[in-house]
Amino acid sequence: MDFKITVLGSNSAIPAHGRNQTSQLVNIANIYLLIDCGEGTQIQLRKFKLKFSKIDYIFISHLHGDHFFGLMGLISSFHLNKRTRLLTIFGPNGLDEIITVQLKHSNTRLNFPLRFVTTNPEKKELILEEKKFQVFTFPLKHRIACTGFLIKEKTLLRNLNKEKLLETKLPLEAINSLRKGKDFNDESGNVLYSVEEFTYPPRPLRSYAFCSDTGFDLEIVNYIKGANLLYHEATFGNDEEERARETFHSTASDAGKIAKKAEVGSLLLGHYSTRYLDLSPLLEEARAEFPETYLSEEGITYTVD
Amino acid sequence: MDFKITVLGSNSAIPAHGRNQTSQLVNIANIYLLIDCGEGTQIQLRKFKLKFSKIDYIFISHLHGDHFFGLMGLISSFHLNKRTRLLTIFGPNGLDEIITVQLKHSNTRLNFPLRFVTTNPEKKELILEEKKFQVFTFPLKHRIACTGFLIKEKTLLRNLNKEKLLETKLPLEAINSLRKGKDFNDESGNVLYSVEEFTYPPRPLRSYAFCSDTGFDLEIVNYIKGANLLYHEATFGNDEEERARETFHSTASDAGKIAKKAEVGSLLLGHYSTRYLDLSPLLEEARAEFPETYLSEEGITYTVD
Repeated sequence: MDFKITVLGSNSAIPAHGRNQTSQLVNIANIYLLIDCGEGTQIQLRKFKLKFSKIDYIFISHLHGDHFFGLMGLISSFHLNKRTRLLTIFGPNGLDEIITVQLKHSNTRLNFPLRFVTTNPEKKELILEEKKFQVFTFPLKHRIACTGFLIKEKTLLRNLNKEKLLETKLPLEAINSLRKGKDFNDESGNVLYSVEEFTYPPRPLRSYAFCSDTGFDLEIVNYIKGANLLYHEATFGNDEEERARETFHSTASDAGKIAKKAEVGSLLLGHYSTRYLDLSPLLEEARAEFPETYLSEEGITYTVD
Repeated sequence: MDFKITVLGSNSAIPAHGRNQTSQLVNIANIYLLIDCGEGTQIQLRKFKLKFSKIDYIFISHLHGDHFFGLMGLISSFHLNKRTRLLTIFGPNGLDEIITVQLKHSNTRLNFPLRFVTTNPEKKELILEEKKFQVFTFPLKHRIACTGFLIKEKTLLRNLNKEKLLETKLPLEAINSLRKGKDFNDESGNVLYSVEEFTYPPRPLRSYAFCSDTGFDLEIVNYIKGANLLYHEATFGNDEEERARETFHSTASDAGKIAKKAEVGSLLLGHYSTRYLDLSPLLEEARAEFPETYLSEEGITYTVD
């Protein structure tokens, strides 16, 4: 099952040095999710030849412009491209008003249904339940209401022991039960076929955690524990630690500390301050805390595994 | 005196073929005006190394997204770049609400004063009076309220006849009067120095007319008569004339007809439909009506003369 993240923007605040503002396209089980949508996101999607008409869900972390100023353009392009499929947008209180006001003044009646779900910045919440994955929000510590997103695979079916199945022909009903992890019993309740005998455990469930703008906050560790891949903002280097504290942003080193505490598989940095043309100091500082760290780069697809 | 237009976007509706959405930067007497502001305008300004901090006035023709979705990003970047100078935005009713709602939800108090002036889509109006130029709006015929903009040089001072001034030494007071076109008289009202003798007429006043989205409308001719340079949308070719009529857009041929009737100096086409990768048929069709026609191209600066 595909579980991939394509980075569309990596700069903070202002587009600069050829780096765009925050946005990521997630493909999980061939369902496309967009996380944040800075100005020019639709231009980036085209540039990297990503089929943006396939996006079903958009998640906006917070209402600073560098995380959502591309949203109206994307909605408008969906409309002009004759989309008819439902689009669901998850975002903070106020985003629905921002969208509605702009549709009203342009006298636009969208061709497609748009569902808006207000996120809760106060506690972890399940906001999307799909067949093969779930999405949760969790609180981040920023200057305005801001949530992270955790995308988790759901319980997988156990794998069948094919050799055993050649020996014993099982009814379909029994197979379904065993794959779900339940022994198959006869009418008196005695085990006929056991899970242990006929199946192997599924591979571990994967998860991706997205921590958009946030100050250094150890509480985050509880929400993202053990994620295979963590994206954590790293606006500043150690040279600007004070500024990071003032503005509720993180240093690369902070991101590394969170990754280490949360025992994630690997860490992806992003949301770079425009003051850094060369990003290698940020990478080094994060790696000093957590060696499995990488710089997110626009147009690059990262696999969650 | 500089009077130059730099095209930042030339495509309609959707950014495509590497073409951005409508926006133009005007430099008149070293005052910078931005007309329309499609998504990614600030990225274009940076790409073409234009000093966008110098912009004092922004004019938005109408509230279809391809003409203003870049505005909030630009305002936000002015703010982040610590602008303190007044910014004046001229635009249709509703644009102030769109801006205010977004500033409210991002909890942003701008560092600089922002003045909003609502344009009137019903009749020609003078909306800006600067020392060296004026800006007028005029009605266009689109699906929603939409105005064009006419930027006109103001009355120029007459040029002094330097040879004559070597012969006769005039007091400063006399020179000022003559340059303004008034004879300089003695106390009894007799002409001491005449305008005819000491000055030449100034060069003709220049003007630039911007006709954003509009159906073919001969009324426009009255508003833009004799402009040195006319930008007129040319969304479609003759092959899509019916679609142009339905959507209140123009064909390239329509734009040529307006240019001819209005006896402008030259015509610049733009707002190309995404269906046209090759724009040469549009250019040919407009030239069949009005030979002095050019395709607007992004990053190119056109001089008004």
